[in-house]
Amino acid sequence: MRGICYTFRMRYSKLFGKTIKEAPSDEVAVNAKLLLRGGFIDKLMAGSYTLLHLGRKVEQKIERIIREEMNSTGAQEILMPLLHSKEIWNETGRWDSAREVMYQFKKNDKEYALSFTHEEIVMDLIRKHVSSYKDFPVKIYHFSTKFRDEKRAKSGILRGREFLMKDLYSAHVSKEDMMKYYSQIIEAYKKAFKRMGLDAILTEAGGGVFTKNTTHEFQVIADSGEDEIIYCPGGDFSANAEISPVKEGKQCDLGHGPLKKAKTIEVGNIFPLGTYYSEKMNAMFTDQDGKKKPIWLASYGIGLTRAVGAIVEIHHDDKGIIWPKEVAPYDCHLIEIQNSKFKSFGDGVYEQLKKARVEVLLDDRDDVSVGAKFADADLIGIPVRLVVSAKTGDKIEWKERSKKATELLTIDEIIKKLL
Amino acid sequence: MRGICYTFRMRYSKLFGKTIKEAPSDEVAVNAKLLLRGGFIDKLMAGSYTLLHLGRKVEQKIERIIREEMNSTGAQEILMPLLHSKEIWNETGRWDSAREVMYQFKKNDKEYALSFTHEEIVMDLIRKHVSSYKDFPVKIYHFSTKFRDEKRAKSGILRGREFLMKDLYSAHVSKEDMMKYYSQIIEAYKKAFKRMGLDAILTEAGGGVFTKNTTHEFQVIADSGEDEIIYCPGGDFSANAEISPVKEGKQCDLGHGPLKKAKTIEVGNIFPLGTYYSEKMNAMFTDQDGKKKPIWLASYGIGLTRAVGAIVEIHHDDKGIIWPKEVAPYDCHLIEIQNSKFKSFGDGVYEQLKKARVEVLLDDRDDVSVGAKFADADLIGIPVRLVVSAKTGDKIEWKERSKKATELLTIDEIIKKLL
Repeated sequence: MRGICYTFRMRYSKLFGKTIKEAPSDEVAVNAKLLLRGGFIDKLMAGSYTLLHLGRKVEQKIERIIREEMNSTGAQEILMPLLHSKEIWNETGRWDSAREVMYQFKKNDKEYALSFTHEEIVMDLIRKHVSSYKDFPVKIYHFSTKFRDEKRAKSGILRGREFLMKDLYSAHVSKEDMMKYYSQIIEAYKKAFKRMGLDAILTEAGGGVFTKNTTHEFQVIADSGEDEIIYCPGGDFSANAEISPVKEGKQCDLGHGPLKKAKTIEVGNIFPLGTYYSEKMNAMFTDQDGKKKPIWLASYGIGLTRAVGAIVEIHHDDKGIIWPKEVAPYDCHLIEIQNSKFKSFGDGVYEQLKKARVEVLLDDRDDVSVGAKFADADLIGIPVRLVVSAKTGDKIEWKERSKKATELLTIDEIIKKLL
Repeated sequence: MRGICYTFRMRYSKLFGKTIKEAPSDEVAVNAKLLLRGGFIDKLMAGSYTLLHLGRKVEQKIERIIREEMNSTGAQEILMPLLHSKEIWNETGRWDSAREVMYQFKKNDKEYALSFTHEEIVMDLIRKHVSSYKDFPVKIYHFSTKFRDEKRAKSGILRGREFLMKDLYSAHVSKEDMMKYYSQIIEAYKKAFKRMGLDAILTEAGGGVFTKNTTHEFQVIADSGEDEIIYCPGGDFSANAEISPVKEGKQCDLGHGPLKKAKTIEVGNIFPLGTYYSEKMNAMFTDQDGKKKPIWLASYGIGLTRAVGAIVEIHHDDKGIIWPKEVAPYDCHLIEIQNSKFKSFGDGVYEQLKKARVEVLLDDRDDVSVGAKFADADLIGIPVRLVVSAKTGDKIEWKERSKKATELLTIDEIIKKLL
């Protein structure tokens, strides 16, 4: 195989991080409760979680979707450091203005900050590597850790003090060129969120500590969301309630009826930063007319761990998680119902699925009841459950997590449906 | 494709991070000079580098090799946080004993440390998730960032203040079980280093701030190395000079002649830690006999960014880097020699290579001389250079970076050789 591989199969008996009956009582968010109970994450401290094997796999699937969509816009993957010097943050004044959210410290007389974002770092990188208009556009992104000292860290992995993020930065010679790529990223983000199973609404928003310009957020409607949007049900308007010029109930100008208000989770944000950073940091290029001009910068973020949490907030029922296909930790959850004959048949099915490169989690435990296995499968939420038992004969029972019906299929039919 | 993809093709004209003539004068290490000149890395501050696109790709190839070899031992990938509380490091006393190398700081009355390693964090994770002997062995690893406040950061990416590492931890019910897996990891590491093009010598060493037990390092002979080993040229003995019981020149007991001394780069290390951490942290399990016993722990590290640097230290000549096949950023470097007819033939070759999923870097620049293109190809060091020009007709010139000879091949022959 060409590309970065990961694990294609797992025997549940060997998995580190099994399901647990009750989430710790200090967890209030649905995402954290279900992810902890399902064995996807473990809490190290408030706002900080370990991704266990299943959680890491979901995150890797999201990473893959984002990587594909970013690469398709011509963006290039890099990796920038997490530890930064005070000097670089002082160039824009954010050492002081973002002090509340940044972890800052001194060691051996040198002052450092941990990455809460990377505009200053990427601007420094770009100003060292470009000089002429011919060197543009620049489109670079990375997957990396961000640190933000959040006052309230009560939303599970929706709002961590430490979390994974994809951040893309684009640099251009003009506003026009910047906005053209900005529009291209809007489309790429829509595709990426759709593949993750998220109906993200493009929403106008303020820029926080990033910019005074109007920016855009991708918001997903969820009762547990910390944000609020005013939006048209016809899809032609959405603004963060904080900056919305209109109120709930006003009639949509295009005749889609009254505007609605909803709680939402922000899963992505994009900032047309303009020349603010380049002017502060003296990041210039020589244009066709021989003149020095400031670089136009935009930045685009997607929280990976937050996306995991948002997916769970939206795709679950009272039994557990229901992963959308493309982000499920495994394609199918194969359950053997104990009986030496069917165990060996089950192992054969497992081998055939492996061979076909179907990603399979096999519940091979022999000290657990059938009922408990089914409950665990519902909690973990892999989209397809397969059962091999005396009842299924030489066929396999197929059940989708989101449906009630079961059907008996041959191994060939199953492989065909899963690939 | 199933798995995590990355970029398969790149037009050099669009690449961010081109070759540069001279490395900054403050860089003394060969690895840093060549990687900077080749456009693989950029320096943010002393001991801290951005991986540009080419550098990130090399690192991802190394990640892939390690992931495959770790998974083949039954280890499971997870991801642990980088920001830790003082309390957890206090449990073993390393908050104080490792203070020099750790970045520690206080924010809002809470004291934190950045990950310089993860034994305490993984031990905490394991003690929460295991209780019975049936839950063992545990084999979990992650790829993540480490921070170490190195006094001297003069060796380029061989010794960074911030770097990427794969660290694996295994937990067992007995010393015997631990040592069995420890031996399995020795073999997996040998394979991994071999695939990276590194002849790593298994070497006895001290344990530093990790353990008082004898540990093992994987050392690669290189003039620029900061370590020194005493070793038998027959391969039956090697010890770090710091702890070697014998000296250079002593006859090998097995008749391989006199022991040698060499400078080396440590690319991996493995620690049979035993029950030290579990006793300090009260990480116990219930054994078959119903008794509570301390968990046996071992840890195993490979520095990813350091491996990139070590490969460059070993595989280069006066023209540039010579990447071993499996870690090269692209499989081949295709050069078009300007001429409208051959440019369209070159683009056709590029498309055919893409289609065959050969990873190809295309030098499509039209404002650069042939000589400069060849010099850049030698500096960047992709193992195979392909040239399309008036002279090559409907064939393509094939030249390996490590050889002088060229030959003319058809596109089909080239694809066959590259896949």
